This record gives sequence, structure tokens and C-alpha cells, in this order.
Amino acid sequence: MTPPPSHSPLEIPQITSYMNPVLAFALLEMAMENFKQFLFALSAAVTVGFVSIIFVLRWVFYFKEGLAWDGGLAEFNWHPVLIVTGFIFMQGIAIIVYRLPWTWKCSKLMMKFIHAGLNILAFIFAAISLVAVFDFHNSQNIPNMYSLHSWVGLAAVILYSLQLVLGVCIYLVPITPTYLRAAFMPLHIYSGLFIFTSVIATALMGITEKLIFGLKNPSYKDSPPEATFVNVLGVLIVIFGGIILWIATRPSWKRPSEQVLRSPPTNGGGSVGIKVSQQTDLIDPKGNGDARRRSGKLEDSGQVN
Amino acid sequence: MTPPPSHSPLEIPQITSYMNPVLAFALLEMAMENFKQFLFALSAAVTVGFVSIIFVLRWVFYFKEGLAWDGGLAEFNWHPVLIVTGFIFMQGIAIIVYRLPWTWKCSKLMMKFIHAGLNILAFIFAAISLVAVFDFHNSQNIPNMYSLHSWVGLAAVILYSLQLVLGVCIYLVPITPTYLRAAFMPLHIYSGLFIFTSVIATALMGITEKLIFGLKNPSYKDSPPEATFVNVLGVLIVIFGGIILWIATRPSWKRPSEQVLRSPPTNGGGSVGIKVSQQTDLIDPKGNGDARRRSGKLEDSGQVN
Repeated sequence: MTPPPSHSPLEIPQITSYMNPVLAFALLEMAMENFKQFLFALSAAVTVGFVSIIFVLRWVFYFKEGLAWDGGLAEFNWHPVLIVTGFIFMQGIAIIVYRLPWTWKCSKLMMKFIHAGLNILAFIFAAISLVAVFDFHNSQNIPNMYSLHSWVGLAAVILYSLQLVLGVCIYLVPITPTYLRAAFMPLHIYSGLFIFTSVIATALMGITEKLIFGLKNPSYKDSPPEATFVNVLGVLIVIFGGIILWIATRPSWKRPSEQVLRSPPTNGGGSVGIKVSQQTDLIDPKGNGDARRRSGKLEDSGQVN
Repeated sequence: MTPPPSHSPLEIPQITSYMNPVLAFALLEMAMENFKQFLFALSAAVTVGFVSIIFVLRWVFYFKEGLAWDGGLAEFNWHPVLIVTGFIFMQGIAIIVYRLPWTWKCSKLMMKFIHAGLNILAFIFAAISLVAVFDFHNSQNIPNMYSLHSWVGLAAVILYSLQLVLGVCIYLVPITPTYLRAAFMPLHIYSGLFIFTSVIATALMGITEKLIFGLKNPSYKDSPPEATFVNVLGVLIVIFGGIILWIATRPSWKRPSEQVLRSPPTNGGGSVGIKVSQQTDLIDPKGNGDARRRSGKLEDSGQVN
């Protein structure tokens, strides 16, 4: 009788004591490599995200008028600061929070609350940032909602609030039937990534507008230091979005199903191949191919011939 | 002995003559429903794409100076026309071309040539559109490469050419080993979608720039008809991108593996469940879970409890 292995991010594919040590070592190495790649991507995302926040703060405090709530340009400045901090960085982290391996020991319900909580916080940041810009426009007699930036941005905020309400109703209200949760999940995932991407596209339009309107003598065309600095901020935001989308779409970095995380391991089969194949059927009655996907690195490789 | 079923989009899950007619009908209905949804999404993408092209042509011919190669504004106008037609519409179609069910009877190699050909054509359109804008800038003494639009746009074109060269070398040069093709595929897919999205974000910045610079008395802020019309073009481009990304990321709309398309069907198993389960192992030695994914609609549903 072998002792049950502990549940860790390195557990899949399972290493068991009856396994050929060379094979076990190879599998462990593969899992470690996968974990290292995840850590690298996560560190890159967090670093680029933080640098973006530092950049938007430096833009506002060093190049512009700082922050205030006075109906003037310092009030407008809350708009980029809150968007980059809340609607981009915080939303990005909310998207990938299930994928952090050290949270896999936490209950799914707690992770749902953290996912929803971060998204609600991001929504509040976005809402305040909209109030700041409408208030600024109204006090300066600048029209609202004339630009493509404002159209796509408002659509993103409306879709985001809809996504929040539907997400809470479907995944946090206990009485929602499982089949509805399953049927809605592909749309929930797609909409989340689509809205996140739209927010970044909107931020790029916002930066473009602000640099054209805000820079006179020298103008944007003359590439003063502020223009170059804020262009770099735009590039950083694109890179942050790219890394978040990469992390969110790697099948092997997905939180394992509750069956894998909670049920005791099965001890059967004489070879790795058979063991993995059996696990697929045992742990995966819904046909997600969970263990199968994790066992290889060709997860979304499609047909490669 | 049952006649081998013809290879059609409705083939998976396979309907065989020994199957309970009620179950067979239910499976057929599911496949038809999936096919109808695909057709609806494709029609929407093509329609929105064509309307976008009509919009950019109307913008250029009705609101602006038309098209010419004279170093003036009519030369600049080639830039949005070629970007929307080539770098957005054509690239979008190139991305989803493998997913058209009526092409599944064509060889994989031919589809690769169509995919590569459309992307090369899109690249040529993008390259000419860049020449137009650099030529216009130089003849008008407007600086090049100062804006975030130009930075992200040039990065997208460079990454796109890199993706083209790598794609041809890895998937069209016959000697490239299969393991390399498989290992590179997740990055090829991700990069393709990332570059496509970046191109759309760049187009939105370009529209923003052009409407601010091009509209004076009344200006962009005063929402003249041209501003509203071109904002709608921007929204159409976002919707087109959204539909292409939806089509490209539905697992059940993926071109079946060559094993499924070319090998004769297996006649074994007494129930649908067993038949599908057996197929998964038989046709899918690489662990792509092809039939498994197609058999249910919960393909990317994750954990839904």
C-alpha cells in the first residue's frame, strides 16, 4: 500500500511510488518546468503592471497637474490613474486569480468571492474615473461622448457591469442549476477576455487623445519627453494585456477540477500511460479532459501534420 | 455491414445504423444546431466585415479626398482603405479559414496554402498602406513614428512578418519535424490572435488621430456627420474582431484531425457513450481530445460547481 501523495501544483501527472523512478523524475521535471514558466509569466505580468501604474502616476504628477477634485485638469487626471490601476491592472489580476497554484488549496467558493471582489473593486475604480471625466467636461463646457474612445469605453463599462451581475447571479447564487452554469461558462470566459481587451484598446485611444489635446508647443508631433514617456506607458499596457491573455488561455495552467483537488488518488495501472488514461475517465466525467491536457504539453496544439 | 458514412460537418459524433434511432436523432440535432450557430457567426462576421469596407470607402470618397498617389491627402487615404480591407478583413478570414466545414474535404496542405496565401496578401496590403502614409508624411514634412498609433502599428507589422516567416518555415517546409510543429502551435495560434487584436486596437487609435487632425470647423468635439460615421466604422471593426475571435476559439468548430477525416469509421461499442469514449482513444493518440470536445457542448466550460 503506497501512502497517498499530497495535493500540490506538481501532483499532475501523479507520481506514485510503484512508478519507474526515471519516469517519475521525468514527470516531476515536466511539472516543475511548467510551474516555473507560470511563475515567470506571472512575475512579468505583475512587474509590467506595477511599472504601468508608476508610469501613469509619474505622468500625472511630474508632467501634468497632479490629482484634485476641483473640476479642472487635476480632476481629469483621476481618469487615467483609476483606469490603469483599477480597470486594467486589477481586472487583469482578477482574470487570472484562479490560476495561481498556491490558491488551489483554497475552496472554490472562496476563490469565486476573490474573483468577484476584485472585479467589483475594478468596476468601482472605473465608475469613479468616469465621474471624474464627465465632471471635468461639464465644468469646462467640453461635450461628452463624442469620441470613439468614449463610445467603446462606455460600451465596455456597460458590458462589464452586465458581466458582473450575470456572473454573480449564475456562479454565486447557490440555487442556479449546474447545467446553466456550465452552458454559460464559455460565454463568461470569452466576454471577460473581450471586455478586458476592449478596455486596453480604449486606454490606447485615450492616451492618443490626451497627448494630442494636452501637448501644445511642443506638440505631440514634435515628440517632447512627455509624448515619448506616455507612448511607453501605452506599450506597457499592451504588454501587460498580452501576458494576462497568455496566462488566461494556457490549458495546463488551469485550476484543476474539484474532483482532482478533493478526492483521494486512485492507485491502479502499471504504466504512466495507463495511469493517466484511467485518471482522465475517472476524474473527468464532464469530458473536460483535465488530466489529459495537463499530462502533455501539446494541449492546444491542434493538428500539426 | 453498414455503409461507411460520408465525411460531412455533421459526422461527429458519428451516427451509425446500429444506434438507437432516438439517440441518433438527438445527436444529429445537436450537430445541426452547432453547424447553424457556426453559419450564423460566420455570416455575421462577413456581413460586418463587408459593411466596414463599405464604410471606409464611403469615408474616403464621400467625406474625404478620394484615392490617388500624389503625396497629398488622397494618398494618405490608401492607408485606412488598405488596412481595413487587407490587414483587418482579410487577416480575419485567414484566421478562421480552417474552420469552414465545407473545406474539411480539402487536404490540410491546400488549406495551409490558402491560410498562408491570405495572410501574405494581407501583409502586402499592410505594407503598401505603410508606404502610402510614410510617403504622405515625407511630402508634407510631417514627422514619422511619433505617435502611439505608429509605435503599436509598426510593432504589429514586424511581428506579423515574423509570424509569416516562422509559420511558413515550420508548417510548410516539409522537413520540419512534427515535434517542432506541435511545440510551436500554441504560440502560433496565440500570436496570430494577439497580432490581429493589436491591429484592430491600432486602427482605433488611427481613427481617433485622423478625426482630431482632419476635422476643423466643425471639429471632432462638435460631432459633425463625418465624426459619427467614422465612430460607427470603429465600432464595426471592434464587432468584426470580436466575432472572429469567438469563431477562432470555439473548440467544437475546429477542423477535425486528419485521422478523423481520412480514416474509415470504427464499428464497435453498443451505446453512444461507449462509442464516443472509444473514439477518443482511437482517433486521438496525441491527446487532443478531439471527439471528446465535439461530443459535448461544455468544451471550455472549466469547473462550474
